[in-house]
Amino acid sequence: MTLIPHDDRGLLLGDGLFETVLAVNGVLVGLAAHLDRMTVGCAVVGLPPPDRMLAERLMREALAGMAAPRVAVRLTLTAGSGGRGLDRPAAPEPRLFASAAASPRPSEPARLITSSVRRNDGSPAARLKTLAYLDNVLARAQARERGADEALMLNSRGEAACAAAANVFWVRDGRLYTPALECGVLAGTMRARVLSAAVRLGVEVAEVRAPGEALAGAEAVFLTNSLIGLRAVSGLDEVVFGGSALVERLAAEFSA
Amino acid sequence: MTLIPHDDRGLLLGDGLFETVLAVNGVLVGLAAHLDRMTVGCAVVGLPPPDRMLAERLMREALAGMAAPRVAVRLTLTAGSGGRGLDRPAAPEPRLFASAAASPRPSEPARLITSSVRRNDGSPAARLKTLAYLDNVLARAQARERGADEALMLNSRGEAACAAAANVFWVRDGRLYTPALECGVLAGTMRARVLSAAVRLGVEVAEVRAPGEALAGAEAVFLTNSLIGLRAVSGLDEVVFGGSALVERLAAEFSA
Repeated sequence: MTLIPHDDRGLLLGDGLFETVLAVNGVLVGLAAHLDRMTVGCAVVGLPPPDRMLAERLMREALAGMAAPRVAVRLTLTAGSGGRGLDRPAAPEPRLFASAAASPRPSEPARLITSSVRRNDGSPAARLKTLAYLDNVLARAQARERGADEALMLNSRGEAACAAAANVFWVRDGRLYTPALECGVLAGTMRARVLSAAVRLGVEVAEVRAPGEALAGAEAVFLTNSLIGLRAVSGLDEVVFGGSALVERLAAEFSA
Repeated sequence: MTLIPHDDRGLLLGDGLFETVLAVNGVLVGLAAHLDRMTVGCAVVGLPPPDRMLAERLMREALAGMAAPRVAVRLTLTAGSGGRGLDRPAAPEPRLFASAAASPRPSEPARLITSSVRRNDGSPAARLKTLAYLDNVLARAQARERGADEALMLNSRGEAACAAAANVFWVRDGRLYTPALECGVLAGTMRARVLSAAVRLGVEVAEVRAPGEALAGAEAVFLTNSLIGLRAVSGLDEVVFGGSALVERLAAEFSA
């Protein structure tokens, strides 16, 4: 197992970024989009971007020993060692490593609760996959305590933002909605693919600022991320959602 | 150097807590208060608290080789290895380690800028010293880019909260003010000691929800944390602060 020095800034301060890429039968799905996102994230947080060839090699090495048909390959970039307290060294030397774990597709729809932990839409980091993910850990823990699978996070204005580890969409009157990135939302690679697919299928779609209550009034809700693809939501707090032909049409696009 | 496995949740997700304790000539200042705070923090984030004897032993070991008169001893507790994605294992086994670095007292007052990175007062983690400190890193980096020492962070309502690595106080009309903990503020051990000292000295003091602009209208501003003690602020953005007899009186209480 890779060992990391205890002065690593990712470990000490959450100073870094990650990507989680799905590998299906050894193929890294959407690898370029994930590496693009990490590169953009590095510019936002002020770190040199990873070498793409090295990143891909580390991911393939992590994947090599895995027999499972679906594997989550995680690429982690930390700000490296050094600096003093919060201040980074003048020339940070990021640390890059990868790991892999079997990632079976969930077979059931997800049950959601609304978390009391708010998404920090007042930080640029809220749109990135950062190593400072404790709010997401706490939101997910609230879901588990209440027997649910995932947590809906609202932002500081009470607007719907995302789940702890997924983007969220909902359907109303035949239209598809998802929170705008300004709500403090990760620019999910699956989110982008679903938006494209909706346009291609002629579905009206809008990225919106909407109160959390908008989901309770929806006909259907679903989650997206790289690992689960598109996962239906069976309920949110006390509200139960039925099936939706529109969600099924979209899901069929991502059933691999 | 201590090495940490790469599956540590502190490293991967910022899932953990830390304390930074000042040691003056080998004496760990306010150690009990720091260990108390970590214990409270563990309860909030759902981790078993550290063994206090072990924590103290690790800190003393880290301190042992240090010749400097003032040393920062950092105690880090991570949620340990395991779990799947955001979900912790059923019985987390936290990892505890300590490190030390010379920590000379800053000789100059601090210059502050107001950061655009907001403090997430909508998360319980905003009141804790967590490993998910990237927002603080980004706020501090903004300060450095603008030639300043520290960054004032406002919360989601635009209220004054804290600096990237310090609590903030201000003086107006002979009264002392500091943001209430509900503003998304770390319950700093120095903050508590300054509040106590003010009461003892007969200074009127209030923990308040106040707009960020309140600081620009103050007569004097200062920062507190365990390492710097009480540090005067010479300016905030375009505003310059003069001296203050009240701040000098308080500073004299913490001049060791």
